[in-house]
Amino acid sequence: MRYDFGSDNTAGMAPAALQALIAANDGYARAYGADDVTARAADLIRQRLDADAEIRFVFSGTAANAIALSMLAWPHEAVLAHHAAHVCTDETGAPGFFGSGVGLIGLPGLSGKIEPGALQAILDEPEVGHRQPPAALSLTQSTEYGTVYTEEELRHLIEPVKLKGHGVHMDGARLANAAAAGFDLTQIARLGVDVLVFGGAKAGANCAEAIVMFDRSLARRIDNRLKQAGQTASKTRFLSAPILGLLESGDWEAGAAHANLMAQRLAAGIATRSAFALAHPVEANAVFVRMPPEAHQRLNDAGWACYRFDDGSVRFVCSWATREEAVDELLQAIATL
Amino acid sequence: MRYDFGSDNTAGMAPAALQALIAANDGYARAYGADDVTARAADLIRQRLDADAEIRFVFSGTAANAIALSMLAWPHEAVLAHHAAHVCTDETGAPGFFGSGVGLIGLPGLSGKIEPGALQAILDEPEVGHRQPPAALSLTQSTEYGTVYTEEELRHLIEPVKLKGHGVHMDGARLANAAAAGFDLTQIARLGVDVLVFGGAKAGANCAEAIVMFDRSLARRIDNRLKQAGQTASKTRFLSAPILGLLESGDWEAGAAHANLMAQRLAAGIATRSAFALAHPVEANAVFVRMPPEAHQRLNDAGWACYRFDDGSVRFVCSWATREEAVDELLQAIATL
Amino acid sequence: MRYDFGSDNTAGMAPAALQALIAANDGYARAYGADDVTARAADLIRQRLDADAEIRFVFSGTAANAIALSMLAWPHEAVLAHHAAHVCTDETGAPGFFGSGVGLIGLPGLSGKIEPGALQAILDEPEVGHRQPPAALSLTQSTEYGTVYTEEELRHLIEPVKLKGHGVHMDGARLANAAAAGFDLTQIARLGVDVLVFGGAKAGANCAEAIVMFDRSLARRIDNRLKQAGQTASKTRFLSAPILGLLESGDWEAGAAHANLMAQRLAAGIATRSAFALAHPVEANAVFVRMPPEAHQRLNDAGWACYRFDDGSVRFVCSWATREEAVDELLQAIATL
Amino acid sequence: MRYDFGSDNTAGMAPAALQALIAANDGYARAYGADDVTARAADLIRQRLDADAEIRFVFSGTAANAIALSMLAWPHEAVLAHHAAHVCTDETGAPGFFGSGVGLIGLPGLSGKIEPGALQAILDEPEVGHRQPPAALSLTQSTEYGTVYTEEELRHLIEPVKLKGHGVHMDGARLANAAAAGFDLTQIARLGVDVLVFGGAKAGANCAEAIVMFDRSLARRIDNRLKQAGQTASKTRFLSAPILGLLESGDWEAGAAHANLMAQRLAAGIATRSAFALAHPVEANAVFVRMPPEAHQRLNDAGWACYRFDDGSVRFVCSWATREEAVDELLQAIATL
Repeated sequence: MRYDFGSDNTAGMAPAALQALIAANDGYARAYGADDVTARAADLIRQRLDADAEIRFVFSGTAANAIALSMLAWPHEAVLAHHAAHVCTDETGAPGFFGSGVGLIGLPGLSGKIEPGALQAILDEPEVGHRQPPAALSLTQSTEYGTVYTEEELRHLIEPVKLKGHGVHMDGARLANAAAAGFDLTQIARLGVDVLVFGGAKAGANCAEAIVMFDRSLARRIDNRLKQAGQTASKTRFLSAPILGLLESGDWEAGAAHANLMAQRLAAGIATRSAFALAHPVEANAVFVRMPPEAHQRLNDAGWACYRFDDGSVRFVCSWATREEAVDELLQAIATL
Repeated sequence: MRYDFGSDNTAGMAPAALQALIAANDGYARAYGADDVTARAADLIRQRLDADAEIRFVFSGTAANAIALSMLAWPHEAVLAHHAAHVCTDETGAPGFFGSGVGLIGLPGLSGKIEPGALQAILDEPEVGHRQPPAALSLTQSTEYGTVYTEEELRHLIEPVKLKGHGVHMDGARLANAAAAGFDLTQIARLGVDVLVFGGAKAGANCAEAIVMFDRSLARRIDNRLKQAGQTASKTRFLSAPILGLLESGDWEAGAAHANLMAQRLAAGIATRSAFALAHPVEANAVFVRMPPEAHQRLNDAGWACYRFDDGSVRFVCSWATREEAVDELLQAIATL
Repeated sequence: MRYDFGSDNTAGMAPAALQALIAANDGYARAYGADDVTARAADLIRQRLDADAEIRFVFSGTAANAIALSMLAWPHEAVLAHHAAHVCTDETGAPGFFGSGVGLIGLPGLSGKIEPGALQAILDEPEVGHRQPPAALSLTQSTEYGTVYTEEELRHLIEPVKLKGHGVHMDGARLANAAAAGFDLTQIARLGVDVLVFGGAKAGANCAEAIVMFDRSLARRIDNRLKQAGQTASKTRFLSAPILGLLESGDWEAGAAHANLMAQRLAAGIATRSAFALAHPVEANAVFVRMPPEAHQRLNDAGWACYRFDDGSVRFVCSWATREEAVDELLQAIATL
Repeated sequence: MRYDFGSDNTAGMAPAALQALIAANDGYARAYGADDVTARAADLIRQRLDADAEIRFVFSGTAANAIALSMLAWPHEAVLAHHAAHVCTDETGAPGFFGSGVGLIGLPGLSGKIEPGALQAILDEPEVGHRQPPAALSLTQSTEYGTVYTEEELRHLIEPVKLKGHGVHMDGARLANAAAAGFDLTQIARLGVDVLVFGGAKAGANCAEAIVMFDRSLARRIDNRLKQAGQTASKTRFLSAPILGLLESGDWEAGAAHANLMAQRLAAGIATRSAFALAHPVEANAVFVRMPPEAHQRLNDAGWACYRFDDGSVRFVCSWATREEAVDELLQAIATL
């Protein structure tokens, strides 16, 4: 079975990430995040975002998202998110677990982007005691369906939420792909995002993500919070070093740009060489294809791992590691389905 | 500041662990634990334990312990543990968080070993509705104070607990050190332990531990449980490979044996060359020294990171990475306090 | 404002309930459920259900449902329920709170009854680690939209669920109304329900419901569970006595029969005297009417409290206390909208 | 078995409470706390406390305490309380359940009163990531051992806690007894208590307590919080009416004064007519007696329900319902042990 396009976490660490990890392995280092490598990685993230922020490195994007949301919503409150967002569909209810019952309200919208009218409608609903009222908005950039919000689109979603006094979380598991697609990272803090999950794993690190708290009041006793939640690394350097390597080398962006380019090549090939339609605009590193179950099955049988999503389309994901030849081989396989 | 003796997680990965990680980085691999490296690592753990078991690799010992306990006790029940056990004193209440309120009942006992009489007394107490009754026993091997339970001692603790129908958890963060001290790993399942946390980080891996479920009924829907708890690695090979490297090479045991030997050297030196007394028998890789606050302060000022524990003694920990010369330098520093 | 039809919890205690409470107030009684009144009430419930069961009296139907579901599903699992069921829409996420993140999967179906095909489709879905798989089915009898499941309908829903090894919960907040409509209570245990919430408040008690555990293994340490969850009454006789009074007198059923009759009178009047259509079959004590927002507003303005539901219809509920004249006055008001 | 002195919740409702409940039963009332009886009861509580506050009526003191603490401490934080406080020893870990893992730190002190030095020592400890740091202080008035804090004593405990920015909770399950002993209720808000649980059940109501939020910011979305936690009464009038009856009639205080007087009579009798010593000063309605296990057993055998506490003494509790003759009969029984 070939896993090249199954997900962007089937690839290993990018060379810059691995080299930094190897370098960081030398000698002793203070445990629990107090080491120099970790400090430098946090500095580089702040630099990329052009913003002050409290930053912690954690193991899991699922945990990072859920913990971030638990900072913004009480158990008797709810988080607004696109109904197809990872927090809603792919994290086994982690927001409810880490948030001790916090609710999720799924919002509609094309290609993974929340429809502003639907958001406003929910915000306008009168609160009643027997439902969990919204306390925060969760955004995904780039989205679950491979699209990228523009600054303007984000502003239209964030503004009414902040007006209500609610918080804003951004799931940036694929933030590098959004950046490579032209999204300006320095706008995240300015737009009013309170907590960002800055993605490492899908950008070529090992399992490592950073929780970026622009609103520093959310970071009160954050080390206790993360330790209790099982997200404190004793040997933190092994989380921060790969991200440091990617950021110092520029490969965090370069790898994502390559992934996006490969997705474009794949999308173009499908449009021109296959009978299948694209299900969503290809703006980042994922390509969603409308493909009948039988064709999907034949592709799997031919050795290509790929998955059907809730919208009925089949997803192919590129990463820093995707080779042109592999794209062409996949296209060949698709063309002959 | 020198961190050599501050903890056994200030060291990096042992060479065998790092090499295995580098080797595992090549090419694509199925995500979420379905890769070959992970399967082989699990096989080697089962081999070491001479037992069938369901095994999963997770990031954090704190989470591994807390999740294991949440399998054994409901929120309205409690876990029995030594009052100085890591789950009681160093995990920021993680058992209560992952267990949604599960209680901890601290038991007394010399040098980190639970006193059987105290355990029996708690088991004999009549249950009342307004207290959390025991549902499980948590054991630490080697213990928080650097001692190692004998099989006989464990049997005396486990038997009455199993008679009550309760579960047994073993925190094996330093299981390698116990093994190196002569503890027979193949007895763990036979003694009746239901869930073992098989330690990686302190044995020379990165942040990686294995949850070993001898009672396979506890493993029902374990992948959902771990995913929700933020302990599922998308790139699992980076958790399992270092442990695989340590087990294949035998360095899991060899590194621990070295650490124990260094602890013996340190203990012997303190006994002969300093005015300070050892606080606990030195059976694994930690040395606890009765040292007045002023002496401790001077040692810190001299650049040696080391910490005071709840029993008032100061702890020094050796690892696979501890050099003889470093032990001698530390002894020199202690001798001149 | 007139609250007669706003809900069935705007009425007070029925005379038999109040008299029993007054009688139970005399003298001292053992606390925490060990009194005679409580024992007798439990006996009468077992008698009505013709089944052995462990029974506890609690304050709140929301808590009773959520606690029952927490017995049947782990945090990483989900409960299947009609999307309009009280547990899904009117309990502020209590199942997720008491169940520490347990999920809810809303199922479709006409008039509050789960569509068997939709249930089967969910049961047939392959399990994946990143979603909460079903562990239990929650049924409501009579339903949120005032319909009553037949035995046959329940069997078709329960059988495939039990085949999967999952649990079954029944929310019987309005079980008396179902019984009065002909539903045979002695079938509940035989159909395979594991936990029933036997409704008191809406049947004429004060705030009191009984958790009925047919599967006694679920009742292990139930007193600890309820105490921790804030659902243990120190003066339990004040919960059990009103239910005892209703059951001894037969007014539990008689009051519900009256309520159902009043709902029939109301429904018939609306059908013949108004331009509005009924939204659902009227089989128990609630009448749902398709009424434009303006008409609803005018009815509210005229002093009649009544609420719009998620299906867009307006609900009127009858109770043991509903007077014929009040029904006629309401019909008069509706006729002149 | 005679339950007169087993607890203060073995008595029924006091006449004023029962009469108010009967009166409140008439006719329809808005559900979920929006009725007039509830509004009047809240007004009288504010009047007694001479303070503005948001007030809600709930079923259970255990839940009231736990919910109050969950407003003041995150799961990764802890609450400071006397080690013998009800929240520590008699609520089955409810603070950890409602608080999703929130910790409890038990403090020492004579006769149920926290020792100020011990409190200060904890507050002075440096915070570390691997422990749950204090976020709130929980006080009990009157205390678990039947003593009553003076204003001055409370000030010495509250001030250093507020200086740290932490919150203060008061468990007033027996606040009426403290008031009857001379404690000035109007000082509670002025001393800096943030949330008070105003006791009903032990003062002669049914199971009903009021959560009094002096810090109104804590009350944000309180109705959602309570509904989710299973502490919202649909028929709230049955919770508020008994408390209203007690406060309007003055029997809330009068009943407690009677209970305290009976405790004095009992204490005096024990001192003069028995060989047993009092274990604690008798300042409220409970009498703790140092009594060997055999004597305790004989007293139980003679039909008097009474319980041994963690400090080894046996407790006798008086209530509004305690008759002089019963005290004398108990004294007679004790004298002949």
